[in-house]
Amino acid sequence: MDSFTISNIPRGSNRLWVHFSSLCFISFLGIYLLHKEYKVVLMKRIQQLRNLRNQPSQLTVLVRQVPLCDEHKSLSCSVDHFFSKYHPNAYHSYQILYAGNNLEELPVAFVTFRSRWDAALAAQTQQHPNPLLWITQMAPEPRDVLWKNLSIPYKHLVLYRTGVIVTEILFTIFFAIPVTAVQGITQFEKLKKWFPPAMAVQLIPGLSSVITGYLPSVILSGFVYVVPFVMKGMARIAGYVSRSQQEQKASNMVFYFLMGNVFFLTVLSGSLLDQIGKTFIHPKDVPSRLATAVSAQADFFMTYILASGLSGFSLEILQPGLLTWDALKIRTWGRGKKKSNYLSSFPYYRVIPFVSLFLLVGIVYSIIAPLLLPFLVVYFLLGYVVFINQMQDVYETTYETCGQYWPHLHHHVVVAIIIMQITMIGLFGLKSKPSASFATIPLLVFTIAYNEYSKFRFLPTFYTCSVKDAKDNDEFDKDGPSDAACREAIDAYRPPSLPQVCVGMEESTSTQPLLSSIS
Amino acid sequence: MDSFTISNIPRGSNRLWVHFSSLCFISFLGIYLLHKEYKVVLMKRIQQLRNLRNQPSQLTVLVRQVPLCDEHKSLSCSVDHFFSKYHPNAYHSYQILYAGNNLEELPVAFVTFRSRWDAALAAQTQQHPNPLLWITQMAPEPRDVLWKNLSIPYKHLVLYRTGVIVTEILFTIFFAIPVTAVQGITQFEKLKKWFPPAMAVQLIPGLSSVITGYLPSVILSGFVYVVPFVMKGMARIAGYVSRSQQEQKASNMVFYFLMGNVFFLTVLSGSLLDQIGKTFIHPKDVPSRLATAVSAQADFFMTYILASGLSGFSLEILQPGLLTWDALKIRTWGRGKKKSNYLSSFPYYRVIPFVSLFLLVGIVYSIIAPLLLPFLVVYFLLGYVVFINQMQDVYETTYETCGQYWPHLHHHVVVAIIIMQITMIGLFGLKSKPSASFATIPLLVFTIAYNEYSKFRFLPTFYTCSVKDAKDNDEFDKDGPSDAACREAIDAYRPPSLPQVCVGMEESTSTQPLLSSIS
Repeated sequence: MDSFTISNIPRGSNRLWVHFSSLCFISFLGIYLLHKEYKVVLMKRIQQLRNLRNQPSQLTVLVRQVPLCDEHKSLSCSVDHFFSKYHPNAYHSYQILYAGNNLEELPVAFVTFRSRWDAALAAQTQQHPNPLLWITQMAPEPRDVLWKNLSIPYKHLVLYRTGVIVTEILFTIFFAIPVTAVQGITQFEKLKKWFPPAMAVQLIPGLSSVITGYLPSVILSGFVYVVPFVMKGMARIAGYVSRSQQEQKASNMVFYFLMGNVFFLTVLSGSLLDQIGKTFIHPKDVPSRLATAVSAQADFFMTYILASGLSGFSLEILQPGLLTWDALKIRTWGRGKKKSNYLSSFPYYRVIPFVSLFLLVGIVYSIIAPLLLPFLVVYFLLGYVVFINQMQDVYETTYETCGQYWPHLHHHVVVAIIIMQITMIGLFGLKSKPSASFATIPLLVFTIAYNEYSKFRFLPTFYTCSVKDAKDNDEFDKDGPSDAACREAIDAYRPPSLPQVCVGMEESTSTQPLLSSIS
Repeated sequence: MDSFTISNIPRGSNRLWVHFSSLCFISFLGIYLLHKEYKVVLMKRIQQLRNLRNQPSQLTVLVRQVPLCDEHKSLSCSVDHFFSKYHPNAYHSYQILYAGNNLEELPVAFVTFRSRWDAALAAQTQQHPNPLLWITQMAPEPRDVLWKNLSIPYKHLVLYRTGVIVTEILFTIFFAIPVTAVQGITQFEKLKKWFPPAMAVQLIPGLSSVITGYLPSVILSGFVYVVPFVMKGMARIAGYVSRSQQEQKASNMVFYFLMGNVFFLTVLSGSLLDQIGKTFIHPKDVPSRLATAVSAQADFFMTYILASGLSGFSLEILQPGLLTWDALKIRTWGRGKKKSNYLSSFPYYRVIPFVSLFLLVGIVYSIIAPLLLPFLVVYFLLGYVVFINQMQDVYETTYETCGQYWPHLHHHVVVAIIIMQITMIGLFGLKSKPSASFATIPLLVFTIAYNEYSKFRFLPTFYTCSVKDAKDNDEFDKDGPSDAACREAIDAYRPPSLPQVCVGMEESTSTQPLLSSIS
């Protein structure tokens, strides 16, 4: 394999211009395909929202920071007054949230409007001259709402989010330390001292060398396996109002974690903290350091893709986590209880970051070591087969994503293209081709500019419903949604703590994802 | 004066804790007053918008990127169709813009709505699933519109803005180079060589030393005097649709220019480029370098405030720029033409940055050299008297600011408080009081957090009209605005190139600000 990597090409060779052309080709092809795919996903999202137009979420707005009514000192009265006055023809009804048995404390309400158009307008506008009062947003699907998080005061959310972001960054940077420590403790020589039965391993010939060789990577994999759950737990603390937002956040965090602790750590071999330190002190050296390191690690990533891919997919099919958890539960705190037959939702936050990581590896090595690509193709084909099966037969839909994960995946691919370009800048520099190195800089600027453009062009429609779409959906129903539809919508947002709904709750937990109860 | 500055206090003295307490006191007092004032300004803005509720701008939305109608290949038809369909009860009429004599090429329209509430909703929402089509915003006042900039295609605006930002940064960083060069050329010794008549200066005793001493600072002042006009010119290229936005942008740019080229350049004595280089290489040294430099320059700033304040205000009253321009015009290209009696608008972009600069000096020196403060108080009192007079008798209102400049001024003061805190961190460090130095860091974090909070709490209401305010303003007129008011509104936005309005144009130029014709 090594004979195919760019690092073996003599300095100043003309073949580097061939590499520069393929860098341009891959960058532009990548951007072209991303842009085309973004358009397709956006069209599908709009179509899907039209198909789901009878969902209560399209008629309902989540209102936070409801102030108390001056006259009656009541929240319900305040909501009713405000919307009857300021959205007179649009407002239909409201559902206020209660904390436990207390029939007021929570300043959160779901407000239903007479049409999707009215709801879209109310969700996107500033209601009050104090923008921290009457904060509106489109409501998530009823089954997607995290009721507990709605009780977190809006003011505290900033503190929660800042705290979570800081913790995540620290977790990502210092992750290598406990891993290295555990790897140090579990060295076979030390194990023998502290845990004499481990001596028995020596009786079987060859086993000790396998353990010594594989134990560190098993420990690393074990730690990495836990990361998505930790990140999901942290995202839960950040107080998002819906499961979908929480899992998107977790998915993003896991990707950055993997990029830092699997890609960069393997490539640059040294703790992330060291690398960040070096980057701050000598920012100009980043491309050349990356170039030297990346070309040396092609072999490692080939084996990594094979090992991690095969083991990952078999783990996905066998679901050992679920099995262990179930077995543990039955034998301990769940003993004697009726076994609930729950189905879990698709763990986007575990799957997408790994797919992104392999995309990153593939893109970065596409020019330096193209022999890696067939392995990746096999990995993705296998993954396609496995996940199509899992999606159809194993997991249950607990919320409609409507393509919400695509912008994240798009961002990860753009990051990969940028890292490839920075690596190539360094590599052309190392090979004494400064002209090719400089010629790559406009390519880098173009990629960043494309990313900014795509944020303007596509991203807003993934977060808001345009006036045109809302009206078009209304007109699909001839006279807009009926009064009955509005009433159904507001009923769907009855908080689970209200007595009437407690009966219905028993059923609904069965569709709750397993994972939310783990993390 | 020097005996009063903090730099004379012995190392490790307990008096430093007195300084730390006053740092806390000034920081918190500053933030408290800023917060209080922001609330007052916001209230005044809302009140002023209510007083101006009959302005056509409150009923009108500026629509950009209007696509061609598929059927008739016409823009007017497209606007009419879109708004009759998607804002059926709200839409009143439209006014399409024309470039020159061509009766179509411009995808820009002013659309009037039946009520302020409808206009506010339409301005704040995303109209189309492609967010780069049908872009809406509240229209600026008719007299505030820069018609020429409306013809710039929206897609190109990003390029224009990026170009302008890059130019501004380069201009600010490299400004010192031509100034130093000109100062070098005009040294008296060199002048005598190249321009022998300059010898005559030596005949008057003492004059030569005055020239040698003052010439460099006169040259610097001359260069700085031109900066606001240059920045306004650059803001014009950036393609803002209204004069008010353009001047706000220019005002901000001039402040950063003055902070870099007057405050930091004087304090740190070395070209801005050197300083930025040093900051990048040793970011940790910034506070201590700042501390050493700031305490050494207290005397300079005292004389600077006196000199610049007195000369600035007399220049403001005498208006030498206007006089020279007028005299030049009459004698050259304006010879024989009828003298137009125009009035100029208040040059916010020239006044606000200097006020902010002196606030910055005052705040940074408030603890290090409090004797500077009485001079500043005199400066501001004098300024108050001069500008009250100028506002009432000299300048004309060409647009209502409605407090739009306040968020900028607020930001400048926060920047000043932050620079003061960084300087004090360095100073406590230099005086071997690391505990006081560390104790200042939470203060710095608090200031930054306050700034972020104020952006959430107040800023949105300076850019959008809340639904509540719009509806309340509508209800002031009992049944909302009449049909006549809507028709008047749309007439007010007739573009100046249309034949009917060419007659009216002659008058309107007389109220155009003088300055826009200079820059």
